Amino acid sequence: MKEITQIKGDFFGKDIITLDQFSSSDIQFLFHHVGQYQEIADTNTLSKTLAGYIITLLFYEPSSRTFGSFCSAAQRLGAGIIPVQNPQAVSSVSKGESLEDTIRTFASYSDAIVIRSKEAGTAQKAADATYIPVLNAGDGGASHPTQGLLDLYTIYQSVKRLDNLTVVATGDILHSRTIHSLIQGLSLFAKNTIYLLSPKELRLSKEDYKKFSGNGIVIKEIFDADQIPTHAHVWYWNRIQKERFATQKEAEKYTNRFVLTKELLHKYGNKNLMIMDPLPRVGEIDEAVDQDPRAYYFKQMRNGLYVRMTLFSLILKRL
Amino acid sequence: MKEITQIKGDFFGKDIITLDQFSSSDIQFLFHHVGQYQEIADTNTLSKTLAGYIITLLFYEPSSRTFGSFCSAAQRLGAGIIPVQNPQAVSSVSKGESLEDTIRTFASYSDAIVIRSKEAGTAQKAADATYIPVLNAGDGGASHPTQGLLDLYTIYQSVKRLDNLTVVATGDILHSRTIHSLIQGLSLFAKNTIYLLSPKELRLSKEDYKKFSGNGIVIKEIFDADQIPTHAHVWYWNRIQKERFATQKEAEKYTNRFVLTKELLHKYGNKNLMIMDPLPRVGEIDEAVDQDPRAYYFKQMRNGLYVRMTLFSLILKRL
Amino acid sequence: MKEITQIKGDFFGKDIITLDQFSSSDIQFLFHHVGQYQEIADTNTLSKTLAGYIITLLFYEPSSRTFGSFCSAAQRLGAGIIPVQNPQAVSSVSKGESLEDTIRTFASYSDAIVIRSKEAGTAQKAADATYIPVLNAGDGGASHPTQGLLDLYTIYQSVKRLDNLTVVATGDILHSRTIHSLIQGLSLFAKNTIYLLSPKELRLSKEDYKKFSGNGIVIKEIFDADQIPTHAHVWYWNRIQKERFATQKEAEKYTNRFVLTKELLHKYGNKNLMIMDPLPRVGEIDEAVDQDPRAYYFKQMRNGLYVRMTLFSLILKRL
Repeated sequence: MKEITQIKGDFFGKDIITLDQFSSSDIQFLFHHVGQYQEIADTNTLSKTLAGYIITLLFYEPSSRTFGSFCSAAQRLGAGIIPVQNPQAVSSVSKGESLEDTIRTFASYSDAIVIRSKEAGTAQKAADATYIPVLNAGDGGASHPTQGLLDLYTIYQSVKRLDNLTVVATGDILHSRTIHSLIQGLSLFAKNTIYLLSPKELRLSKEDYKKFSGNGIVIKEIFDADQIPTHAHVWYWNRIQKERFATQKEAEKYTNRFVLTKELLHKYGNKNLMIMDPLPRVGEIDEAVDQDPRAYYFKQMRNGLYVRMTLFSLILKRL
Repeated sequence: MKEITQIKGDFFGKDIITLDQFSSSDIQFLFHHVGQYQEIADTNTLSKTLAGYIITLLFYEPSSRTFGSFCSAAQRLGAGIIPVQNPQAVSSVSKGESLEDTIRTFASYSDAIVIRSKEAGTAQKAADATYIPVLNAGDGGASHPTQGLLDLYTIYQSVKRLDNLTVVATGDILHSRTIHSLIQGLSLFAKNTIYLLSPKELRLSKEDYKKFSGNGIVIKEIFDADQIPTHAHVWYWNRIQKERFATQKEAEKYTNRFVLTKELLHKYGNKNLMIMDPLPRVGEIDEAVDQDPRAYYFKQMRNGLYVRMTLFSLILKRL
Repeated sequence: MKEITQIKGDFFGKDIITLDQFSSSDIQFLFHHVGQYQEIADTNTLSKTLAGYIITLLFYEPSSRTFGSFCSAAQRLGAGIIPVQNPQAVSSVSKGESLEDTIRTFASYSDAIVIRSKEAGTAQKAADATYIPVLNAGDGGASHPTQGLLDLYTIYQSVKRLDNLTVVATGDILHSRTIHSLIQGLSLFAKNTIYLLSPKELRLSKEDYKKFSGNGIVIKEIFDADQIPTHAHVWYWNRIQKERFATQKEAEKYTNRFVLTKELLHKYGNKNLMIMDPLPRVGEIDEAVDQDPRAYYFKQMRNGLYVRMTLFSLILKRL
């Protein structure tokens, strides 16, 4: 048992539950190490970094994307995996076991647990139950820190800094976990401005607006594509999170209100622009944009692999 | 993105979508290499051929057999795996993502994708969406090239040639994907004759008959076990494909019309005969036959492992 | 094909189907080897003991705990895995294949099969169908030998012997597979006494009472916590096996009749007592007890990993 603590420059043995644990220097420290893991992955080098280690992938909620990324990251470092997808169906949970006991069980067999669930707070509860590191792979609308980190890394890798940036985030601002993380991450660095483009009904909640704007980042809400600034460094598009609406029909009212097309890109995009999307995409970026060199969303996914490899390594091996 | 092309003696980086990609010399080239992978598997040698590689097993349709074979083949070469079984349940497909984006996602994490699906054309679509190699593990009734290759390999390994053969294929000729592949594969080599034994209602479609018989292979349709030639090199039995019938009852009309028994074997089988079946079997070969030295169907499965190891290696590593 | 035989000091190539196969010296031989595998796991050593081997995990019944343990054990020794969870959904069984053929299929791809199922006798049937070793990971109420072995190992590791012990087993004595195994295991060693504490309705069946008490172990049935002897070496608690009752309601009548609390421990537990539970727990041990140094149930799970590693190694590699 242990409390979740700030990283403070030392990842060894830490849980990764939320972006709140990271200072700007923690993020820079992490990103400083990513290159060597990228090298391992890109050259198909047999790494023994985590040879002799086993990592549990405990996915209470289906997410083939995040599962695949962590699964690959672990094995590219030489670790073995315990793949548990949809544990409601496959586990002793149906026999009435507590989450804590389930976690302690997998802690008996493995050296770290990656957990994904629908309920906010699950990753923290899991971390509290065991001494081995727990990595949050998304707990409902609450937190998905590795997604936040890979988004920041993608910007950092290309622009070479995380301050003095202008970012446009578009879509379901109200519900998008990744856009919340992006605002939070950018807030750690100086002089960033974020434009939030959405239907009025899907703007940031008042609470979140207040919370985030107190952090030094400049937030500008816009409700029309005409207001997209032409000097932005990043366009960050995200789908309508239809699973967060009461009805499918309600969600469809907003679907594809702001579609990123070649025309929009031609009109407001500058030549150094990075186009990002956490994916999956559901029409919010036209496929015709995929071939544009400014489309970074597939590189962004690949970066997720590198960042997760780096985290596994820093958490499980003393430097 | 790339088009599916002929192998033409160079497997490196190629997709494996259909038997149509293979010339007779491609098949011989492939089979020439199988022995060394058989050696690795049979001696439990730690191979590092694909150490540092990750292979995604994306099974949209359940198939524990084919899954197990590819899963073993990858790991026997030292590769890691991303196992995704029944992705309808576990993936972002439910969030409305396109197949192409799903493929690009797994291409971000892995070095090759093995895909299985119920819909014809899926493997080709997948291959078109990414630059990493895609291997078709069966797409509906359309194609299952590695099954075709392992069937041919099993004959080749035993008879030492693929021409001048007489083969009897029995069962649900109309629907059997593997029998279609077998006819197609044998057509690549000279002077082969295939007897197709089935209920009249399940004979080859006129289209297929026309297509295949134009290829140089001699096709003889027979509808009674009495007509089985006694000089055949191979008997290839296959179950009624009940999932392709409108109703279970409709399928049952044909089930076990031609059962391979010891008696049948005694009557028409010569002493060098090979008995094959792609399995699963559902009564079409009596279990009493299993002990007969002419029963090759379990060796045939093992050969699938060797052939898939060989394909992985030739596709992912430059010779 | 082969019969299930006694271990008789030689694990190589043997199936592990039931505790009946083990003599007391087999158990001691096994336990003698556990330490080196504990060392491998605890130090995250890269073991190549089973490098080049593939192990199938064929789980017809969900059991994330047992799955995770075997999965980790295999990979900690360097083996690869074929993970098949809930094969009803994912396999050719739905096409009508026999268990025997399914087993032969996985035997074509792998070097050992771990099988879990709801039906008694499945593991034996599986073992009869193939020449590769089959390990029973639980077949209904019948047998779960590796659980029995890890329970005995946990006692052995701590008390340094398996004879002259007093053990209290509590809970659903009638249905608990693990308590049956514990009685059976302790019967192999001299001068053991087991107290069975349960509601009268859940006492040992007459048949089992007769069978077990003929084996030299002293069985004392008690029906009140007051009767717990204060000199016991082990308290072995187990949940009500609600899946074995006709109705949920019927099961609830007995749930938590005997809860292990700090108070109970204070009253009847001596200072060297070991508290064990095969887990999952469903309230039968109060969580407040977890911090007590006498709580062994999480160590017990970890021991399962070590014991399974040892079994894999002894079965697959000639000493």
